[in-house]
Amino acid sequence: MSSYRKELWINVKQPMDFINITPQVEECLQESGIKNGLVLIHAMQVTASVLIDVDEIGLRQDYEHWLEDLAPHDPITRYHHNRRGEANADAHLKRQVLGRGITLAATDGKLELGWWEQIFYIELDGLHGEYVLVKIIGDK
Amino acid sequence: MSSYRKELWINVKQPMDFINITPQVEECLQESGIKNGLVLIHAMQVTASVLIDVDEIGLRQDYEHWLEDLAPHDPITRYHHNRRGEANADAHLKRQVLGRGITLAATDGKLELGWWEQIFYIELDGLHGEYVLVKIIGDK
Amino acid sequence: MSSYRKELWINVKQPMDFINITPQVEECLQESGIKNGLVLIHAMQVTASVLIDVDEIGLRQDYEHWLEDLAPHDPITRYHHNRRGEANADAHLKRQVLGRGITLAATDGKLELGWWEQIFYIELDGLHGEYVLVKIIGDK
Repeated sequence: MSSYRKELWINVKQPMDFINITPQVEECLQESGIKNGLVLIHAMQVTASVLIDVDEIGLRQDYEHWLEDLAPHDPITRYHHNRRGEANADAHLKRQVLGRGITLAATDGKLELGWWEQIFYIELDGLHGEYVLVKIIGDK
Repeated sequence: MSSYRKELWINVKQPMDFINITPQVEECLQESGIKNGLVLIHAMQVTASVLIDVDEIGLRQDYEHWLEDLAPHDPITRYHHNRRGEANADAHLKRQVLGRGITLAATDGKLELGWWEQIFYIELDGLHGEYVLVKIIGDK
Repeated sequence: MSSYRKELWINVKQPMDFINITPQVEECLQESGIKNGLVLIHAMQVTASVLIDVDEIGLRQDYEHWLEDLAPHDPITRYHHNRRGEANADAHLKRQVLGRGITLAATDGKLELGWWEQIFYIELDGLHGEYVLVKIIGDK
């Protein structure tokens, strides 16, 4: 069994932005030389997510409104967490909806993605600078 | 380390149907010969999910109503995504709640499921014909 | 490839309690001797979850209110599942939001957690006594 680890540092320019990291993850898999195995791709910031969906600008806006409905940012005083000086309780909750990250299969050196599926990084609370962890285990 | 890959093509007869695929996944594990490892079971259609819950007809109806509350299908014009000719933005959002799929442990050739837990495929947007990917890695 | 399996039996004293199991999971990784691999940590009770977030008492209260908004317990008759003598349909739905469990990377014998991230067990329906499954695969 081989293993591979990489930190992808993402340049977040806008809160709630969907950043397509599929090319970087594919590069990691190639660099690892692993042909068959599992690929873990996780956001290492507690208010950020890695998720899979199609790359369509309208859908990104739908996510933003939808997440705001499910866990509104305002008023910030509605959350106990924010009474200690934070203002990001909503981002913690939104992350549970989207998840911390994903695990994908790799077969014959390729990521197993469905039609239209792309991998996105999304920071749910402002502009934190953190990395996405790519960990791959499998056989070369 | 051994690896195994199978496509389970699911015959969806009804939208929002819960299709119990536990027997097929167990068959995959047996066919793989792998005793200890991880089993990835993912819906390869961007509007479908694989999830774990009990097999109870009432609960399936509860899911349907609940998902409709969280991300209503109508009016379809409420979603930006739908303004380009699609009508399935809600299905994309529902998939984030349920997840794309699951990863299970395998021990001594058996799937590690809790009491009552079964594996379901659910298509959230009509009758797309796509497959569930089963990827298993581990030792024989 | 090596594999390791452990059942962590959790003493739940209060419904909806967040129980920090990070030390026990770290102990499992050490005990396994595995340096590089994947660590699956799953709640084996169909109404419980394992999730990652910060350890902050205010946030726990926010989760409780938020989950109750998303899938209210009362009135229990609103759910078809409950018409057969159960009263926990809401707990099944809440579990889908939080997830059954997580998969983490292990590198050089350490769990890959971000700043502030801790691992929690939460039982969403009363005081069921069940275990968390820790399954680790990788190389020593």
